[in-house]
Amino acid sequence: MGSTRRHSAEILADPIPGVPYEASLTLKLVLEYHGARFRGWAAQPGLRTVEQTLGDALGTLLGSVPSLSVAGRTDAGVHALGQVVSFSLDGEVEPGRLMRSLNGVLPHDVAVLSAEVAPAGFSARHDARSRTYRYSVLARAAPSPFLADRALWWPHSLDEAALHDCAAALAGTHDFTAFTPVQTEHVRFERDVLSAGWRRTGEVLEFRIEADTFMRHMVRVLVGTMLEAGAGRRSVQEFERLLQGAPRDSAGPTAAAHGLCLESVSY
Amino acid sequence: MGSTRRHSAEILADPIPGVPYEASLTLKLVLEYHGARFRGWAAQPGLRTVEQTLGDALGTLLGSVPSLSVAGRTDAGVHALGQVVSFSLDGEVEPGRLMRSLNGVLPHDVAVLSAEVAPAGFSARHDARSRTYRYSVLARAAPSPFLADRALWWPHSLDEAALHDCAAALAGTHDFTAFTPVQTEHVRFERDVLSAGWRRTGEVLEFRIEADTFMRHMVRVLVGTMLEAGAGRRSVQEFERLLQGAPRDSAGPTAAAHGLCLESVSY
Repeated sequence: MGSTRRHSAEILADPIPGVPYEASLTLKLVLEYHGARFRGWAAQPGLRTVEQTLGDALGTLLGSVPSLSVAGRTDAGVHALGQVVSFSLDGEVEPGRLMRSLNGVLPHDVAVLSAEVAPAGFSARHDARSRTYRYSVLARAAPSPFLADRALWWPHSLDEAALHDCAAALAGTHDFTAFTPVQTEHVRFERDVLSAGWRRTGEVLEFRIEADTFMRHMVRVLVGTMLEAGAGRRSVQEFERLLQGAPRDSAGPTAAAHGLCLESVSY
Repeated sequence: MGSTRRHSAEILADPIPGVPYEASLTLKLVLEYHGARFRGWAAQPGLRTVEQTLGDALGTLLGSVPSLSVAGRTDAGVHALGQVVSFSLDGEVEPGRLMRSLNGVLPHDVAVLSAEVAPAGFSARHDARSRTYRYSVLARAAPSPFLADRALWWPHSLDEAALHDCAAALAGTHDFTAFTPVQTEHVRFERDVLSAGWRRTGEVLEFRIEADTFMRHMVRVLVGTMLEAGAGRRSVQEFERLLQGAPRDSAGPTAAAHGLCLESVSY
């Protein structure tokens, strides 16, 4: 999952004279979760979310719920194989023991894969250099009982060469305005794509994309639009032109959430 | 999934003089199912089983429920990627259309992967030359939200060389009395193992075994006993001696059903 960046000691505040120095520990957790029964990452009143579920488990074990920093705020139904979370706490904790205890109290659809002490001030969100998402498409005539909530079922014909050509156009810096419904919260719509490509494993086609950061729905609209090219309803040239800041309604539909998975985060 | 064996015409009864000859069609279906919410294959009053579910769907589409022959009668919780079923029906049916219609009415945890016309008299059970089962073990410290109901979680140490040595002893004809709880219904306890072996893919260890036929719980008790050898609680030599007709209580426990999957059937 990559190595953690070193932080300078200045990030830790100097102890105030006369006040006892409180040892603060920063922890980094890597999480796997099945998104089907979660309303996404971010806590929302009355809804079952991963943040809320993990926060409750940490509160049970530590006595209070820490404030969580997360690498990727996944939407409802989206999965994670390598989500990264960080938080600070006062006092001592043995990370391996915390991981085992968390896995003992967490429900079956979320698990902690690793827990380690991070440099003081480490933030899973702000220190991430890149995120890698994967979108899975089951390309066969019959649906799959095993992939029903993990891959988009595509029983139609699909031009894989067109998919490859679209993905090849993604590497580099582009304006992804056409690929997100959110038009207010972003100052800039450019994103740096480090790599992008489709790969077939048996009957499953996987689109994998690594970028510095992603905007809301970005991977899902990219996939929905590439599938239109794969179905012959849009040319690769039209797809390429969308990467120059076209409006949202010129791109394709938002592919279903259950095909998407946050695979890993690099630091 | 292999080719179907040719049947001699004699299997079809001669038409009775004076009674109109009814054209009978034999169909072969390949099924995939997720076993978690089924009480196994065989129909039982009041329980949700794959046989009952498929029979209901066929009854809806064909007007009557045919008698089903099945290659492997899987237990509750056991999965299938290539279960084979056959049945006869009077009249005409286009197999590809039947497959699509079945997938339209079947629940999400069972699907028809292929449907084809088989030679008259073909029986998915009696004509099968061999079955291949796979047992999956997740060998890592953390549980997996994605494999919780598909692989046995094994967070303990495991001597993979011992697993390989046990599996190597399985090829050939052996007496599997020690590996089934059923001591009455079988005339003979010998089975011909065509191949058996463990393979690691990432954090998942898969045991794959192909044999002419299997007795109840046979793969699960084999795995439960091999895991004892892998954990250092039993020697490979002890495992080998069990293959000569030892009593059931000399073998290990029955590994959990959810790790088992009927992978394919050969004809």
